[in-house]
Amino acid sequence: MTIFASVAAFETALADLPGPDSEAQNAARARQAQLTKPAGSLGRLEEIAIFFAGWQRRERPRLDRGRAAIFAGNHGVTAHGVSAFPPSVTAQMVANFHRGGAAINSLSAVAGLELVVVPLDLDRPTADFTAGAAMSATECLDALNAGAAVVDEDLDLLLLGEMGIGNSTAAAALCARSFGGGAHEWVGPGTGVDAEGVARKIGVVDRALAVHTYAAASAFETLRRVGGREIAAMAGAVLRARQLGVPVLLDGFISCAAVAPLFADNPSIADHCVAAHCSAEPGHALLLRKLRLAPLLMLGMRLGEGSGAAVAAGVVRAALAAHDQMATFAEAAVSESL
Amino acid sequence: MTIFASVAAFETALADLPGPDSEAQNAARARQAQLTKPAGSLGRLEEIAIFFAGWQRRERPRLDRGRAAIFAGNHGVTAHGVSAFPPSVTAQMVANFHRGGAAINSLSAVAGLELVVVPLDLDRPTADFTAGAAMSATECLDALNAGAAVVDEDLDLLLLGEMGIGNSTAAAALCARSFGGGAHEWVGPGTGVDAEGVARKIGVVDRALAVHTYAAASAFETLRRVGGREIAAMAGAVLRARQLGVPVLLDGFISCAAVAPLFADNPSIADHCVAAHCSAEPGHALLLRKLRLAPLLMLGMRLGEGSGAAVAAGVVRAALAAHDQMATFAEAAVSESL
Repeated sequence: MTIFASVAAFETALADLPGPDSEAQNAARARQAQLTKPAGSLGRLEEIAIFFAGWQRRERPRLDRGRAAIFAGNHGVTAHGVSAFPPSVTAQMVANFHRGGAAINSLSAVAGLELVVVPLDLDRPTADFTAGAAMSATECLDALNAGAAVVDEDLDLLLLGEMGIGNSTAAAALCARSFGGGAHEWVGPGTGVDAEGVARKIGVVDRALAVHTYAAASAFETLRRVGGREIAAMAGAVLRARQLGVPVLLDGFISCAAVAPLFADNPSIADHCVAAHCSAEPGHALLLRKLRLAPLLMLGMRLGEGSGAAVAAGVVRAALAAHDQMATFAEAAVSESL
Repeated sequence: MTIFASVAAFETALADLPGPDSEAQNAARARQAQLTKPAGSLGRLEEIAIFFAGWQRRERPRLDRGRAAIFAGNHGVTAHGVSAFPPSVTAQMVANFHRGGAAINSLSAVAGLELVVVPLDLDRPTADFTAGAAMSATECLDALNAGAAVVDEDLDLLLLGEMGIGNSTAAAALCARSFGGGAHEWVGPGTGVDAEGVARKIGVVDRALAVHTYAAASAFETLRRVGGREIAAMAGAVLRARQLGVPVLLDGFISCAAVAPLFADNPSIADHCVAAHCSAEPGHALLLRKLRLAPLLMLGMRLGEGSGAAVAAGVVRAALAAHDQMATFAEAAVSESL
């Protein structure tokens, strides 16, 4: 399915983002003030309910159809020894997802989410982006469309996750190109490389930044040059979800890095996104600040796969249940504040 | 049901606390290291699984029987205008719990928990503790036993919550007597009193501390003098859960304050407890530090009723599901770290 028929179509979509339904938001806010609790006492649960009301365009948002979409891709940059795991693990973990043995299988089941796994040309890694662009324009557009294709307009929530040995190096490069700052500000241990490995990753990202310095700084060119297929797919899914009014739960450093180039072009792109958590990957906290997103959870997670987003989906479900099911002061004959 | 037949029996139980099963903990830790993910990448979810393994005494802990116990009590100290709500709201909210209209009804249902509501002599508020002890020894012992009675040995998890107009004032007094510090360090807006109300609460707690200065500093005497029935009940439930090896999710400022006097007598009392969240009530962050508990969630909640604990129960469920259901590297034929 081709949602974005051309680079221009993608760019037009990114430039023209629909907003939330402020009437539904106001109705949800008014409802929260009537529920049997001190005003504001459910904290972020109240904010979540009002946020979802706006994007789902209904006073009482629901979570009947939540989908976790996990994209997988391979990266030519792994040739430089940037990961603690061999690149063959990407396909092995996709097989693990299909057999139900990975963290995201248990976590999405607990959260009541449908799990969709989308491997993207795993036998064709992206090109080494320290030597040139990671993808051709066609490859990048295909990946964007593969992401957009997982979004249906009747989804109540979309979670984005990824698997791709080497992709925390690509994510660091995307952040540096989108928000500036040296490679050292964005590179971390990823799956668990040691200090020497981190230094090697910094060198790789520095070289990539030098190679692509004079390239156009558009969202598409950044994704194409230093991204990866699973990363471009998440970017396409975020944009498509916005077009269809589907709220998004972003996961960790990689899924947020997929939004970074889009944010550099249009900072309102993250308005329909909730940051599920702040991961232990050091660059993530900085990236969340740049994206102006306050994470729901801080659990020291750093797995990817949408695992943090799946845990946060439970918090969203709690927030929407309280908003929908609680009695008002009048219904319960409870006295309001003195 | 009388678990603690006398004050001495309660004190003996508090002095002799069983520990976790370190063999089960080690088995769970070894299992975590074999699951298909980078070591440590599930962060606190891994710690939770190992913690529950120790207290449930099994390598793969479960959450089939989780119970949220909400205790309600009334407080003579409300005569001093320490709450934003009239004391009649305690009974009105208990009725709301019974009809299913409160936040904890929705939140415990989402988390798959049984909800038990225990109103404690709502028509007999505790005595005003600025003039004398809040409870007689018999009243306090009865409340401890009412709490202990909600704990069965086949529970996988116990959540504690409360409802009691005025009880954030009692909680502040309990903290000050247990950990020192002036009333101003422990008093906050509670359900939402203004600055003038906070000043009034500080004055009330200061007076209570002065009145009881020369009283015995034991856990029982502190609970009896400046606590309340629902607070003593939570203390009794925490102690009974420890005897039966049932892990506990503490909720906000009040439920943690119930543990404070016990902790002052025996600092290992909180070892089987997880702090569900850090509430917006200012004293809670300090109290968690004193109890050496790191909160799972920071969602700006400040409702009580066990509401934060119920949201955190979803995180526990996710942690235990991943621990139980994930494949090992060997089972999934996934390559381990290089």
